Amino acid sequence: MSYGLKMASFHAEFSRHKQRFDNALEGIRVGKISGAVGTYAHLSPEVERDALHMLGLEPDPVSTQIVQRDRHAEYFTALALVAGGIERLALELRHLQRTEVREAEEGFSKGQKGSSAMPHKKNPISAENLCGLARLVRSNALSAMENMALWHERDISHSSVERVIMPDSTILMDYMLNRLNSILTKLRLIPENIDRNLEASHGLYFSQRLLLALLEKEIPRQKAYELVQEPALRAWEEGRSFRDLVLEDEAITSRISRSELDELFDPGYYLRYEQEILDRVFTKDGK
Amino acid sequence: MSYGLKMASFHAEFSRHKQRFDNALEGIRVGKISGAVGTYAHLSPEVERDALHMLGLEPDPVSTQIVQRDRHAEYFTALALVAGGIERLALELRHLQRTEVREAEEGFSKGQKGSSAMPHKKNPISAENLCGLARLVRSNALSAMENMALWHERDISHSSVERVIMPDSTILMDYMLNRLNSILTKLRLIPENIDRNLEASHGLYFSQRLLLALLEKEIPRQKAYELVQEPALRAWEEGRSFRDLVLEDEAITSRISRSELDELFDPGYYLRYEQEILDRVFTKDGK
Amino acid sequence: MSYGLKMASFHAEFSRHKQRFDNALEGIRVGKISGAVGTYAHLSPEVERDALHMLGLEPDPVSTQIVQRDRHAEYFTALALVAGGIERLALELRHLQRTEVREAEEGFSKGQKGSSAMPHKKNPISAENLCGLARLVRSNALSAMENMALWHERDISHSSVERVIMPDSTILMDYMLNRLNSILTKLRLIPENIDRNLEASHGLYFSQRLLLALLEKEIPRQKAYELVQEPALRAWEEGRSFRDLVLEDEAITSRISRSELDELFDPGYYLRYEQEILDRVFTKDGK
Amino acid sequence: MSYGLKMASFHAEFSRHKQRFDNALEGIRVGKISGAVGTYAHLSPEVERDALHMLGLEPDPVSTQIVQRDRHAEYFTALALVAGGIERLALELRHLQRTEVREAEEGFSKGQKGSSAMPHKKNPISAENLCGLARLVRSNALSAMENMALWHERDISHSSVERVIMPDSTILMDYMLNRLNSILTKLRLIPENIDRNLEASHGLYFSQRLLLALLEKEIPRQKAYELVQEPALRAWEEGRSFRDLVLEDEAITSRISRSELDELFDPGYYLRYEQEILDRVFTKDGK
Repeated sequence: MSYGLKMASFHAEFSRHKQRFDNALEGIRVGKISGAVGTYAHLSPEVERDALHMLGLEPDPVSTQIVQRDRHAEYFTALALVAGGIERLALELRHLQRTEVREAEEGFSKGQKGSSAMPHKKNPISAENLCGLARLVRSNALSAMENMALWHERDISHSSVERVIMPDSTILMDYMLNRLNSILTKLRLIPENIDRNLEASHGLYFSQRLLLALLEKEIPRQKAYELVQEPALRAWEEGRSFRDLVLEDEAITSRISRSELDELFDPGYYLRYEQEILDRVFTKDGK
Repeated sequence: MSYGLKMASFHAEFSRHKQRFDNALEGIRVGKISGAVGTYAHLSPEVERDALHMLGLEPDPVSTQIVQRDRHAEYFTALALVAGGIERLALELRHLQRTEVREAEEGFSKGQKGSSAMPHKKNPISAENLCGLARLVRSNALSAMENMALWHERDISHSSVERVIMPDSTILMDYMLNRLNSILTKLRLIPENIDRNLEASHGLYFSQRLLLALLEKEIPRQKAYELVQEPALRAWEEGRSFRDLVLEDEAITSRISRSELDELFDPGYYLRYEQEILDRVFTKDGK
Repeated sequence: MSYGLKMASFHAEFSRHKQRFDNALEGIRVGKISGAVGTYAHLSPEVERDALHMLGLEPDPVSTQIVQRDRHAEYFTALALVAGGIERLALELRHLQRTEVREAEEGFSKGQKGSSAMPHKKNPISAENLCGLARLVRSNALSAMENMALWHERDISHSSVERVIMPDSTILMDYMLNRLNSILTKLRLIPENIDRNLEASHGLYFSQRLLLALLEKEIPRQKAYELVQEPALRAWEEGRSFRDLVLEDEAITSRISRSELDELFDPGYYLRYEQEILDRVFTKDGK
Repeated sequence: MSYGLKMASFHAEFSRHKQRFDNALEGIRVGKISGAVGTYAHLSPEVERDALHMLGLEPDPVSTQIVQRDRHAEYFTALALVAGGIERLALELRHLQRTEVREAEEGFSKGQKGSSAMPHKKNPISAENLCGLARLVRSNALSAMENMALWHERDISHSSVERVIMPDSTILMDYMLNRLNSILTKLRLIPENIDRNLEASHGLYFSQRLLLALLEKEIPRQKAYELVQEPALRAWEEGRSFRDLVLEDEAITSRISRSELDELFDPGYYLRYEQEILDRVFTKDGK
């Protein structure tokens, strides 16, 4: 697959996160001035409505001493889901920055130090940091969910929790999004390593196409599987090109012509629907 | 407050849960037949679309080997939020069934046994059961959130998790909603105990109205507070009617007339906006 | 049961918590100066040992760039278990302070205000606060457990987590223990309400003894159960003394003599092993 | 570092897990037959003791209707910590099996199929499975912790939870340990790839030794750091041997002699304490 598709997957996921966050935000954009048990004992609904409108809030249709905490639990779980999406992207970036993979690097300005013990190393510290912070935002969502079942018209147990998680999760999310933005802005892809890694699999990603071509020749599945597996395992074991081994394999070449094989080993084939997918995500805003 | 308002609060909360669940369901009503990395290597998007439509699903605009797990995490957190709402209601029912409160009872058919050790006791076992099950559904949501950050185009670690939580959380939720429905259908409110408990506070719920009336007489807040607290604490300590103690209290009666006091101690006053709240929730479907 | 036994249960539980916390503390009382991958590349194990001893720590027998995080996860889960114990006690105190139960009160000094809206109310704010904080300490333990599976000889993802949870959980626990201590020191039990609540069950706690006595008379279990349930339900419904109803009930008095019944209705009977239990917990330090 | 040290780290961690699990098991090896509130209303402590001894259990020194759930919460968190240790090891095995790293392979018998879509691939499905299952065992621990704060002498909310997590976590742990054992038994290390990956870093792991040698020559830290970073970054960028670049670098060779450099680039140096560490872990049973 291409890096474009990889990023399209994250783009679509983050569009979904945005939608969830917007829904959650709408859910907590309410307030109440309806008294200690929600009966407007001392002020009228009109006063509540006018006061809340000044604050850009709507009155909660029914409140107790508080606005119910399912609203806030939705907000904190929406943040936790965003954090999980950031974690998926950060984890991807960590993998791509592994010494053995190294298809990408977090920005590293000239003269900047790497790890203190190993000056040559460019550690993916920002991506690792984000993976850690995702755990915190996720854990906080759990406390928020435990905050829902308050006693009667409210007890005050949720208050001590919210004093911690309300600023923590909100500020952490702001920090995470900014840090992620900074990584992505400065991220350096390393095309020669992408090519090297692609070649390192000895063209084995063509194996499934070969398998399907054999099946179309009405070769039974088990037999076709064995025909493909033999050169595939050898390519892997011997570090040779899968294509070369297939071309040398009479059991295969006797069933599929050379020109058919040339077509089967065309890498462009795998991206023939790329533009259609990108259109769905970026032009049509698919989520 | 009234039991009608209490239930209106739950009705509005469950309307929000329903909305969240519908959103989450829409999010997982997608599928993919786009191959091992999501590039439609062997089938076209058209085939995917037609096949999925037969199943009542939409194609995921961009997929990898899988549909991304943020969709499922939203589903499981939506279930966890519903479970939290059920827990809030079940907890309320447990409180109302306490021996000392006993404003409500879970249905108990004639001849049915109570607790095995204490035959006279009607334990709120259904409500307690629901509180426990809410913990499970909540915990499962956590696993679902940890399932999001898979490696590259997918690893298979989420699979073992989903084989457990997918049936468990879904079936538990079905069970919980049915059991809750059964409790609510059979729930018996005990009006004489509601009255007894209301009287047991010696009318102290009028204290705030008195406080506000004193403030309107331009008595400084600290002074007004002390004026109210004195008979309030005595009512509590001596188990006497707050109203009677206030009427005997010259420091108060010298400031507020008898007819004003009569009005202040009218319980109907506290429910004068009840119908308006009920309309917002039940007629206008406020959430 | 007695308040002495109630507290003995908490004492035994907290003795177990202390043991767990001590074990966990011992587990993190290690350090390492063994270099970036744990091979003592630049310093010897002797230097490590001497330096750590100065700090009151032991060398980790085998370390990577870090001391493994299972040690810290044990520490945070030990704190979460303590928090759960505090929550159980705080929850008990909240129940005992309910308006309808009111067997105990959090200290409330003369002149101190109750809730701002209801001056007469003494809210169990400390106990509610502790219940909330327990959620935080529990959630943090979850992050600590997710910190265990670091990549290779370490990645740095746990660091951002620990910068938050290390101070938060430790300081919260200090705060919680102090606040709990303050509640317990000032806690006021209200004997007259304890008696009132005991009587409020109309002596129904004697029902099981009666049931067993009937069984000893070789009355079949189902029959015995019905014999007890009849006056038990009436006591409950009519608010009369269970003992009186039993003494009037010929179906029972024809089977058990008056003097036997007198013995069955002796409340002291239920505490005849109290001292033995207290000895096991407080004298023999049973956990 | 060596694979021996890598495994020693896991051995020591699992020794700690074993200790924790043994402690937790001891904690739940108690029972109670002390009646509905723990006062031995109908049976004596002697009967309890004799009956429990027949079951290999000890009497809980003080019980309510139940044995307190902190004991079980410790058991479930101990399992969750073991699961976290298994996850760390499984994650390591997944990394080592990456196509680009491939220092190890999960056993793959001759003729066995790889992934269904890509016959040549040997997916680390067992290791991924274990990472997923760890999430479940961890989540269940959370429910177990929420089970602690029961009402008064017990409510029954923990029961529905334990009916699920008691078998699930216990059986999952049995399965995980067996599956892990099976992976480790069949695990194939691939020495040529270990060497290749070691060489792939161009000997940059010597950079810190060089840095320290320069510091010992009393070169200021900032200067020494720059001296090392220059050939280090070039080795990385140009894919050349760090050692060769250092030997060509007059700024360094003018400060450190050739024979000193030869000693600095001796790989055996890094394992000179390996046996001592292994002894601590395997001979002296260090945890």
